[in-house]
Amino acid sequence: MNAVEVTITEVGPRDGLQNTKSFMPTAAKKAWISAEAAAGVRSIEVCSFVPAKIIPQFVDAEEVLAYANAIPVLTPVVLVPNFKGCERALAAGARRVTVPVSVSEAHSMSNVRKTTAQAIEDFARMADLVRSQAKSKRAQLVGGCSTAFGCSLQGAVAEEDVVRVAAALQEAGADAISVADTVGYANPEQVKRLFRKVRKVIGEDFNIEAHFHNTRGLGLANALAAYEVGVRYFDSTLGGLGGCPWAPGASGNVVTEDLVFMFESMGVNTGIDISKLIEVRQTAFAAFPDAELYGHISKAGLPKGYHPGRAPP
Amino acid sequence: MNAVEVTITEVGPRDGLQNTKSFMPTAAKKAWISAEAAAGVRSIEVCSFVPAKIIPQFVDAEEVLAYANAIPVLTPVVLVPNFKGCERALAAGARRVTVPVSVSEAHSMSNVRKTTAQAIEDFARMADLVRSQAKSKRAQLVGGCSTAFGCSLQGAVAEEDVVRVAAALQEAGADAISVADTVGYANPEQVKRLFRKVRKVIGEDFNIEAHFHNTRGLGLANALAAYEVGVRYFDSTLGGLGGCPWAPGASGNVVTEDLVFMFESMGVNTGIDISKLIEVRQTAFAAFPDAELYGHISKAGLPKGYHPGRAPP
Repeated sequence: MNAVEVTITEVGPRDGLQNTKSFMPTAAKKAWISAEAAAGVRSIEVCSFVPAKIIPQFVDAEEVLAYANAIPVLTPVVLVPNFKGCERALAAGARRVTVPVSVSEAHSMSNVRKTTAQAIEDFARMADLVRSQAKSKRAQLVGGCSTAFGCSLQGAVAEEDVVRVAAALQEAGADAISVADTVGYANPEQVKRLFRKVRKVIGEDFNIEAHFHNTRGLGLANALAAYEVGVRYFDSTLGGLGGCPWAPGASGNVVTEDLVFMFESMGVNTGIDISKLIEVRQTAFAAFPDAELYGHISKAGLPKGYHPGRAPP
Repeated sequence: MNAVEVTITEVGPRDGLQNTKSFMPTAAKKAWISAEAAAGVRSIEVCSFVPAKIIPQFVDAEEVLAYANAIPVLTPVVLVPNFKGCERALAAGARRVTVPVSVSEAHSMSNVRKTTAQAIEDFARMADLVRSQAKSKRAQLVGGCSTAFGCSLQGAVAEEDVVRVAAALQEAGADAISVADTVGYANPEQVKRLFRKVRKVIGEDFNIEAHFHNTRGLGLANALAAYEVGVRYFDSTLGGLGGCPWAPGASGNVVTEDLVFMFESMGVNTGIDISKLIEVRQTAFAAFPDAELYGHISKAGLPKGYHPGRAPP
């Protein structure tokens, strides 16, 4: 088997579920996570350690994480919104923790009632907490630059602000930087320019991840653009789960199976079995009718004579 | 006003309508064409000169073309499947004629009951016919390489075959070459590779056009890839009209308004007013309920503070 060239993190169990109206049963979450892992997905964001009174969907975060931690070869990721969430996540055995920091001040205030600078200070405290863990079981910490491509509250977000936040998160102790198009404003030219600028400051060899939404249809084009400037880590959700993708302000994510299809068609190995992944889409939400799915490859089917990961003659 | 950097040809009145079940009234076609022209679309494929007994939708081809020809600044394009269609089109005053030739032998036989070589011979006869026109009113002839990225009948299509067909069409007298992903099999890597190969043979300065379908979701990513290797002419349809885009083998086209949004967001001038274009989508099909539309920007809305054609700070 060839080496995996692009790592896709399925963020559906977190980003996909955080805005759904009904609760996805814990057993269904577990089945979804294990089925995707069996299809070759090696990185899954499984839950958020946000207070259950704010997002009841994640009341079972500890249980879901424990389940995911027991799946061989899977690296579960969890999202934490603040220090308390980080404490909970680490106590629950989190091995990889993403902390989003809004580059947009308006979004930061609206989302966590903190300025961006205050959120960076919080991140530094979380980094200290992580560093206090025994080295052998120390968690990886991902610093997320949210609303990096624009904000539905404040509009444009200056690229120098994104670069500054990314550098601050790295300086504070992040093991990787994620650059997120939280509201689906990014375009491919902007993607290339911004990732180049960020990488120039954090270093070409430092882990950098891309999180795109498909709100305005450019998700795959943006992923392609990021790939072209060297990004090799991408978030997406099965079936594009993440609220109604068609509504104004919707958060529809890039569709995992379409993203995998794009890369595999290009001959870029994701390590994921696209046929199995399409099956997971068909079964994972059977008991969760609230899921509003979209996407193309699952409906159109694979091309005739298609060989994943193999370029045509 | 800045110079147009990318020309988008709206092919909805032809490619979008050829598989719809009901007849779009001639008045509605005219209104659609003139509304898009008013939004800044300068190139529209308005009809096909295929026998009405085969596709009744185009029984009004002469009338629609005459109407489009009378719109200032618009370059109407027509599709012709064979020599007789070409005669009809030229007699009707066509100024730009696209002739598709299937690179896939299986598709060629199925579609026009000719081998690819025979179709190229036909093309040469059409080129002679065009050349017999008075120079002042001579039509432009576009040689289309169909199924260039794969075929739902034969599977893979060899890239050398595409290059060979493109060169033959140029040699026979084409004024431009169109390379078409007729069934939505293309991926961005293949797009770059194939357009580079074709351009190497027909010449970097020779007009080359891209026609992508969005069947498997990669339409915009493929358009981006083609743009990156120098392609500046793209086909698309308003609302992605072109059969049900979700059905297996569906022909859903790249969505014009999403394609315009992508380029304008990148700071690439299309000359098209995206807001007006979105309005056209809302009105053009009011009297044509058979239209199955999809797409993103028309539903999500433009980003806050969005300025078409202007890169963010």
